[in-house]
Amino acid sequence: MTPRADDRKFDVAIVVGSDSDLPILAKAAALLTEFGVSHDVQILSAHRTPKQLDEYVESFERRGVKVVIAAAGKAAHLAGRVAASTVLPVIGVPLDDGIGGLDALLSTVQMPGGIPVLTVAIGSAGATNAALAAVAILAIDDSELTHRLARYREKMALDATRKNDELQHLGVEEYVRKKSPHG
Amino acid sequence: MTPRADDRKFDVAIVVGSDSDLPILAKAAALLTEFGVSHDVQILSAHRTPKQLDEYVESFERRGVKVVIAAAGKAAHLAGRVAASTVLPVIGVPLDDGIGGLDALLSTVQMPGGIPVLTVAIGSAGATNAALAAVAILAIDDSELTHRLARYREKMALDATRKNDELQHLGVEEYVRKKSPHG
Amino acid sequence: MTPRADDRKFDVAIVVGSDSDLPILAKAAALLTEFGVSHDVQILSAHRTPKQLDEYVESFERRGVKVVIAAAGKAAHLAGRVAASTVLPVIGVPLDDGIGGLDALLSTVQMPGGIPVLTVAIGSAGATNAALAAVAILAIDDSELTHRLARYREKMALDATRKNDELQHLGVEEYVRKKSPHG
Amino acid sequence: MTPRADDRKFDVAIVVGSDSDLPILAKAAALLTEFGVSHDVQILSAHRTPKQLDEYVESFERRGVKVVIAAAGKAAHLAGRVAASTVLPVIGVPLDDGIGGLDALLSTVQMPGGIPVLTVAIGSAGATNAALAAVAILAIDDSELTHRLARYREKMALDATRKNDELQHLGVEEYVRKKSPHG
Amino acid sequence: MTPRADDRKFDVAIVVGSDSDLPILAKAAALLTEFGVSHDVQILSAHRTPKQLDEYVESFERRGVKVVIAAAGKAAHLAGRVAASTVLPVIGVPLDDGIGGLDALLSTVQMPGGIPVLTVAIGSAGATNAALAAVAILAIDDSELTHRLARYREKMALDATRKNDELQHLGVEEYVRKKSPHG
Amino acid sequence: MTPRADDRKFDVAIVVGSDSDLPILAKAAALLTEFGVSHDVQILSAHRTPKQLDEYVESFERRGVKVVIAAAGKAAHLAGRVAASTVLPVIGVPLDDGIGGLDALLSTVQMPGGIPVLTVAIGSAGATNAALAAVAILAIDDSELTHRLARYREKMALDATRKNDELQHLGVEEYVRKKSPHG
Amino acid sequence: MTPRADDRKFDVAIVVGSDSDLPILAKAAALLTEFGVSHDVQILSAHRTPKQLDEYVESFERRGVKVVIAAAGKAAHLAGRVAASTVLPVIGVPLDDGIGGLDALLSTVQMPGGIPVLTVAIGSAGATNAALAAVAILAIDDSELTHRLARYREKMALDATRKNDELQHLGVEEYVRKKSPHG
Amino acid sequence: MTPRADDRKFDVAIVVGSDSDLPILAKAAALLTEFGVSHDVQILSAHRTPKQLDEYVESFERRGVKVVIAAAGKAAHLAGRVAASTVLPVIGVPLDDGIGGLDALLSTVQMPGGIPVLTVAIGSAGATNAALAAVAILAIDDSELTHRLARYREKMALDATRKNDELQHLGVEEYVRKKSPHG
Repeated sequence: MTPRADDRKFDVAIVVGSDSDLPILAKAAALLTEFGVSHDVQILSAHRTPKQLDEYVESFERRGVKVVIAAAGKAAHLAGRVAASTVLPVIGVPLDDGIGGLDALLSTVQMPGGIPVLTVAIGSAGATNAALAAVAILAIDDSELTHRLARYREKMALDATRKNDELQHLGVEEYVRKKSPHG
Repeated sequence: MTPRADDRKFDVAIVVGSDSDLPILAKAAALLTEFGVSHDVQILSAHRTPKQLDEYVESFERRGVKVVIAAAGKAAHLAGRVAASTVLPVIGVPLDDGIGGLDALLSTVQMPGGIPVLTVAIGSAGATNAALAAVAILAIDDSELTHRLARYREKMALDATRKNDELQHLGVEEYVRKKSPHG
Repeated sequence: MTPRADDRKFDVAIVVGSDSDLPILAKAAALLTEFGVSHDVQILSAHRTPKQLDEYVESFERRGVKVVIAAAGKAAHLAGRVAASTVLPVIGVPLDDGIGGLDALLSTVQMPGGIPVLTVAIGSAGATNAALAAVAILAIDDSELTHRLARYREKMALDATRKNDELQHLGVEEYVRKKSPHG
Repeated sequence: MTPRADDRKFDVAIVVGSDSDLPILAKAAALLTEFGVSHDVQILSAHRTPKQLDEYVESFERRGVKVVIAAAGKAAHLAGRVAASTVLPVIGVPLDDGIGGLDALLSTVQMPGGIPVLTVAIGSAGATNAALAAVAILAIDDSELTHRLARYREKMALDATRKNDELQHLGVEEYVRKKSPHG
Repeated sequence: MTPRADDRKFDVAIVVGSDSDLPILAKAAALLTEFGVSHDVQILSAHRTPKQLDEYVESFERRGVKVVIAAAGKAAHLAGRVAASTVLPVIGVPLDDGIGGLDALLSTVQMPGGIPVLTVAIGSAGATNAALAAVAILAIDDSELTHRLARYREKMALDATRKNDELQHLGVEEYVRKKSPHG
Repeated sequence: MTPRADDRKFDVAIVVGSDSDLPILAKAAALLTEFGVSHDVQILSAHRTPKQLDEYVESFERRGVKVVIAAAGKAAHLAGRVAASTVLPVIGVPLDDGIGGLDALLSTVQMPGGIPVLTVAIGSAGATNAALAAVAILAIDDSELTHRLARYREKMALDATRKNDELQHLGVEEYVRKKSPHG
Repeated sequence: MTPRADDRKFDVAIVVGSDSDLPILAKAAALLTEFGVSHDVQILSAHRTPKQLDEYVESFERRGVKVVIAAAGKAAHLAGRVAASTVLPVIGVPLDDGIGGLDALLSTVQMPGGIPVLTVAIGSAGATNAALAAVAILAIDDSELTHRLARYREKMALDATRKNDELQHLGVEEYVRKKSPHG
Repeated sequence: MTPRADDRKFDVAIVVGSDSDLPILAKAAALLTEFGVSHDVQILSAHRTPKQLDEYVESFERRGVKVVIAAAGKAAHLAGRVAASTVLPVIGVPLDDGIGGLDALLSTVQMPGGIPVLTVAIGSAGATNAALAAVAILAIDDSELTHRLARYREKMALDATRKNDELQHLGVEEYVRKKSPHG
């Protein structure tokens, strides 16, 4: 069944330009699930399936979509095309497909005045941050989400602190030997 | 009077790293005014006045800030420092201060997984888009703002269409002569 | 009157993303006129007026358009958006709008497999070459156009040769003094 | 037997600068075969065998060549050298040979005004797109080719849609596990 | 036990943004040990654990810290954040985390006037040089350290000379075969 | 009289590769004067006057030099050549001479393991920071200098705060009109 | 009269791709004159006048040419085309024509194995150095030229030393005021 | 025995900055042997063994050295340091040591006016071309060497032609299967 016919409601729409981008963006979807944020993931290309992409964007209103995440590589027009057809906040994730992702970064972030794309880091860190930023946007009027974000930050800080504590305990040499034996 | 003592409430906090960045970001402030979005503008540097910056960020909760816009040039750490201390959505505007803004772009957008900065285009287009994106975020639960954004888009399209109509009327040569005599 | 209602036929459609790009592309239009190639010039933005752009592209078939030239700066999605909606040859001209045009170049040329954009040099040289390439494509089955292209090349070579002859006559110092007194 | 003596006629000439470039360009040749477009593939270097290259270009007229595809890496002069000796449309494919292909891209695309090279993406996507663009150029006066191009696009869209449908069916996690187990 | 409670004194503080950076910086720590320079290594992130980082920096005075080494990748704000809170010399080591380390280099070195970060090479060479530079700074008023630095240089020169002597003895071919059999 | 014969003692040696670099480095010298740090400025080129440069470096010991600042553009070898002949801390200032200073930055910062050059930002900000870093290094065992550095930072923060206060007082529009009438 | 008919003998052939490049290369010609090295300057384009260029290269043998200097901007194929047709040493000068000269640098220097182009710096410094390198090559078996090169170096060193002496005499502030009043 | 004591005469001096660079430059040495050109290879670093390097350069005159090849990575100062101390032609080979060799390329090629370094391509192609260029320089007054260079070119062209002939014989698919089964 095509996405157009599907009237399921969700808060965040994730679009990837190619199914080879899915493994990276799967982390964003998993993170949204972790935060209890409803979302939808579609493979829709600005170049190969532009009409389906446009139809999907047109469905945002009736589906109650609030934030869009669009990820693509090379001449990454996906986020920009989405942004041209909606006034919803669009988060762009540039993916590395050959020259370090610089092409995708510039194609995503250098939007002309009038049509913003909110761009995050290239690749995996960007996918994580796109999800967190979407949550942050939804959290503005949702104190429970704000609370979860704060806990996520605390947990992240705690993990880092725990590693540091272990480093203090083991010393550099032993820590490196234990944690990254092939470093 | 320092910003910390000021308990005025507003939706969008705009921070610039240096007063030389103000002329560019003034457009963002003007655009927020045009949209009727309350905002505040501060010159606070991640490097020269880090404590005041942190205090300002700490004041966001009691001031009801919902979105932050942070603009800086060179090794632009401003947006990242703000993002490290708040879970609010932070929009970063990289500014060109010597090598085309590539340093500011990479310093702003390449945030590690966990702490997103939503980055827009380098310079003036980015300032405009930061404001529009902030409005778009606030518009999620505000149909009036959504309406204004839609009208802004329509007006922008109309302006472009009017120029195109004039081009059709005048022809290329005459249009260029009239509109950009020194082009 | 909007371009959609206009059913005038022409061989080459020139689209620019903004009227500030017109002075550069005006050279392309003038060159097509010089070659006797019918053409049309429109200001249509992939981001600000995407629907009008799509409608214009949809009109190509009934208007008998054979080649498209699309020029834009920054995150230049214009040529790619046109290419996504037509199987006609699309020539992309990247324009410099701040970082030397590298953003527009990569956004135009790095198209994914399946949807080609034929990209020429950044800026003015690219505008000239887009027109010449369009003529070259039309000349495949038009011996008169081929003849004109050959004469254009000859004239270009002749101009270069004349300059060289003058250099041989004047010597370097005198030539530079005469031709580029402020060089 | 040298290529010069061969008077076989064909529509598209593919030239690669080195036989190490053949695996990438083989896709372009296969695609032309799929479209029923006659073509020829030669290993001819702008630097190592410039005379044979020039002779090959000179043979284009009597062989009825209509479009040229030239692919090279590093200081990729191949397409530019071909373009300097013919008024036929020349499509340049930059190949990555060490610094991401940026050298080949700039050497191919930044042609001076007067001698266009129509440049496509770096590497494999570029090879595919060079073939498709050549077909698009030939299709201008060939409705059968236009039809095949349209069907190619449809098939491409269908493939993407099928993947998306499978994604909707399986869900992200399962799709990623099944399709890219090592992603 | 957290680093804050620890009042051990040392000359050089090494901070890494993530424990994945430890294997590279472990060389710096080992080199400081070799020179007999007391030091401390902490995993503290400008983004994930900013407060702990600031507390650590605040502890520098009572711990008698004289030089700081800070290493991070991507949008590397670590060294800059440390430098914003101390007037001690701060050495920044940019690490490669995806685009060759150019992002980390620019984020580290392009500090605004007023807050210097002394930046060394990307990655492993930078880690070595950060340690040597810290020793050089401490050696200004310590003739024994100066002596050790001079001997380190001599040993380095001697190693290089020994390799060269072996090359003279073996000849190029044999040397390459023996030393880099898979070169 | 050549610099070699001069046995004046000073703490910081500033070397510029060309007298065209002096206006930028003059700020560093003035800043050192402001901090009461004795210094010397020489125009000595790694390429044009390498022997004088080496002799100058050899004089560092008897002159009691403690820190070196070396500034150059293009293939900036100056700091590296100094660093190869001394174990003193060497601060490199890359200068922009044509491609944004990227050549000078990479030539200065990418030193091989063993011979550090402590690199600061390109151009004017770098010159300021080189002086401040030299002071910071000298301040390690000089509480008076540490005090002055702290006051410099306070003054810098105060200036920024004053500008911010004025901004709060005037509002953005008025501030921009008053402070950057041509912005 | 065309260059081909001219049988004047000379040691160094200077070729520029466009007469707009002459002012920069005029310095190279003047320098050769200063060294008493016979030379010839031609405007010949790899793209606009490839045949005349090839004929000129073919004339090198009978004219006794020993070294070639070729200067061009953008996709600078000139030096490479010359190098493909002669075994004489070819010196390439990349010229800046829009993106800092990086395109011309890479197009000139990244020649494939087998066909060297000896590349010097972008622009004016490169033009000077191309002439000096040509002289250095000719000086290998010409002790008088070697002597002149040595004197040129001495004069260059003397000029630098004189400036430095004046700096020592005037002090930094006064020197900058006098020499670069607008610096 | 140190290189200084060695008074063997040779035409070409090859210097590499590190023994890890030898495998690449070994090709240059082998090529010089193939051409019957006497040469010498030394591991001498501009940074680790600057005095030995300078002594080696000083020995060039009594050893009858005519051309120098210097290869290094990162902030590659080697060729520039040699060039600063000799008027002989110096060929620089930039090596890739982390960011694609761009740092080494710019550090080698961007020499200031007055001290040329003749730069070839990054890495292996550059090593080959450095040797060929050295031969070309020596061949200016050596008709036998010129003859060998011409034969080398012919052989290179023949090899390319043979591959092309085989391609014509086998067809693209079969050629790729046979020659690059894993391409």
